[in-house]
Amino acid sequence: MKLNRGRPGTLAVLLVLTSLVFGCARLPVAAEDPLPSWNEGAVKDGILDFVARVSTPGGKDFVPVPERVAAFDNDGTLWAEQPIYFQFAFTLDRVKTLAAEHPEWRSEAPFKWVLDGDFQALFDADEKDIFKLILATHAGMTTDEFEGTVREWLATARHPRFKRPYTECVYQPMVELLRYLRANGFKTFIVSGGWSDFMRPWIERVYGIPPEQVVGSGLKLEYEMRGGTSVLLILPEVDFLNDRAGKPVGIHRFIGRRPIFSFGNSDGDLQMLQWTADGKGARFMGLVRHTDAEREWAYDRASPIGRLDKALDEAQAKGWTVVDMKRDWAVVFPTRGSVGR
Amino acid sequence: MKLNRGRPGTLAVLLVLTSLVFGCARLPVAAEDPLPSWNEGAVKDGILDFVARVSTPGGKDFVPVPERVAAFDNDGTLWAEQPIYFQFAFTLDRVKTLAAEHPEWRSEAPFKWVLDGDFQALFDADEKDIFKLILATHAGMTTDEFEGTVREWLATARHPRFKRPYTECVYQPMVELLRYLRANGFKTFIVSGGWSDFMRPWIERVYGIPPEQVVGSGLKLEYEMRGGTSVLLILPEVDFLNDRAGKPVGIHRFIGRRPIFSFGNSDGDLQMLQWTADGKGARFMGLVRHTDAEREWAYDRASPIGRLDKALDEAQAKGWTVVDMKRDWAVVFPTRGSVGR
Repeated sequence: MKLNRGRPGTLAVLLVLTSLVFGCARLPVAAEDPLPSWNEGAVKDGILDFVARVSTPGGKDFVPVPERVAAFDNDGTLWAEQPIYFQFAFTLDRVKTLAAEHPEWRSEAPFKWVLDGDFQALFDADEKDIFKLILATHAGMTTDEFEGTVREWLATARHPRFKRPYTECVYQPMVELLRYLRANGFKTFIVSGGWSDFMRPWIERVYGIPPEQVVGSGLKLEYEMRGGTSVLLILPEVDFLNDRAGKPVGIHRFIGRRPIFSFGNSDGDLQMLQWTADGKGARFMGLVRHTDAEREWAYDRASPIGRLDKALDEAQAKGWTVVDMKRDWAVVFPTRGSVGR
Repeated sequence: MKLNRGRPGTLAVLLVLTSLVFGCARLPVAAEDPLPSWNEGAVKDGILDFVARVSTPGGKDFVPVPERVAAFDNDGTLWAEQPIYFQFAFTLDRVKTLAAEHPEWRSEAPFKWVLDGDFQALFDADEKDIFKLILATHAGMTTDEFEGTVREWLATARHPRFKRPYTECVYQPMVELLRYLRANGFKTFIVSGGWSDFMRPWIERVYGIPPEQVVGSGLKLEYEMRGGTSVLLILPEVDFLNDRAGKPVGIHRFIGRRPIFSFGNSDGDLQMLQWTADGKGARFMGLVRHTDAEREWAYDRASPIGRLDKALDEAQAKGWTVVDMKRDWAVVFPTRGSVGR
């Protein structure tokens, strides 16, 4: 009897230690809801089910970790895009800041429209005028200097409606989704029509996505030596527009692998979603539909910004996932001061 | 006494289990030389010292994991580039294969030079003619079709001197270096003048570098629907040449972060090395110098392929690391059949 005491004791220790050692790894996933800001329902279930299927070894839909590529649009998908694209808000603020060095802008369209606050003229402006504003504020400096202007703006600018930094106008449910995918072996990429250099200074802190996983638009660059040190000068010429049919092109050039999971919110994302859908094996195509005028905005088919029309038809026809912001999101924005902490 | 027996038993189990659980993780790193194919000496010591300095928490040269970006040229740095760039060998073989569909090539330069085996004419050809050959063999098909031609060629083509697949003409010491850097938190990238789409089908298996970590040259792409499915068509027009001053540009556009470690072998890598050197904090700039006519080739300042002249002067002036292949590498190529296993 006494001799036996040692054995069960040893066995007990073994069991406890083993369950601790192997249990720990599982606990975080098992214990809590990985998507707490998502309401229960078909959309949340569909996401959880897809991730479980592709990450279960031996399952018929299993996808090896290196192929778990997830692509996300940014404007209107990961953060808000109203009343104007945030990069355009940056552009307008930069025009006002730079006006001191450009007295000629007072009388010169499209710059005078910005300085006079003539939003109707800006709204009616054609693409050529908009690009003049973008080139005047995004080119003619080094990449390091441009990064500085973005950081400076983000630190001081506030969203006109929400009175918070633009980086706190990100969608909490999508931030949780990015984290959840990465916890399940996915590599998360941004595939946006926005400028890569406008996103890279903040997306790592806010989304946990490193600069090398950003596929975006950009201007031509020129390498030169300045006072014995190398710089990259941003030229006033578009290098690549990563939007619409440009998104699958950008995905191939930058990632070189077809995503198995992609999320957008507008017709600008249709080709990225098609490119994702046409690959072999299990696929997830998602659209964020802006249906919540109270907490965010309600817009889609008729909106000049983030129009969701053809892509919505195709999503409905092909059974892609359509997130109804009002129905599916328990929370829209993160609590103040919580971003990137 | 008897009662006590249980306790030491329990303790023993605890100790054994603990040492197993925590010991295992450490073993592989501690036990063996991470660079067995490198001869002992200043170059190997310099590499080991740099990696130790940037990866030691609290050290003055410590670099956080996300910033441990390492960039490697491919041709002449990770695999051989003689007697001709391997992508050009692929190009010539493809011209011969496609000649059946192009009877006009028999009488049309530069194609006839390839079909007639007129290497002098090819050697004297200007860039325009070389590009005709590249466009005829790399464009006019979908990205999936092109990938197929690369895989097919790699499976059958053999290097003229070494009589082995081109993917077995990689440098074993550099493959070990890539692995060693990744084991110490580095993200390894290829930054090559070669075509991304020529490298991506094999570099993951051979170097352990995924497609999304390849920065290379490429042709313009066009997205289109073919019979209800989306394809990317390769157009006969250069999109981007990732060579010389194009390398820092490519690094910024694709990675968006300055490497702290980069390795090249020719003047085409000089700007990448300068861009790496001009960043803040600890830096490593390396050049592979081809000094081994017996095991590989001996060439640098005068070579038409992989000329190492200006970059060698700058490396010597600034104290960058210059690998002397004959002196520093115990082994050049992997043993047959060992690649990617």
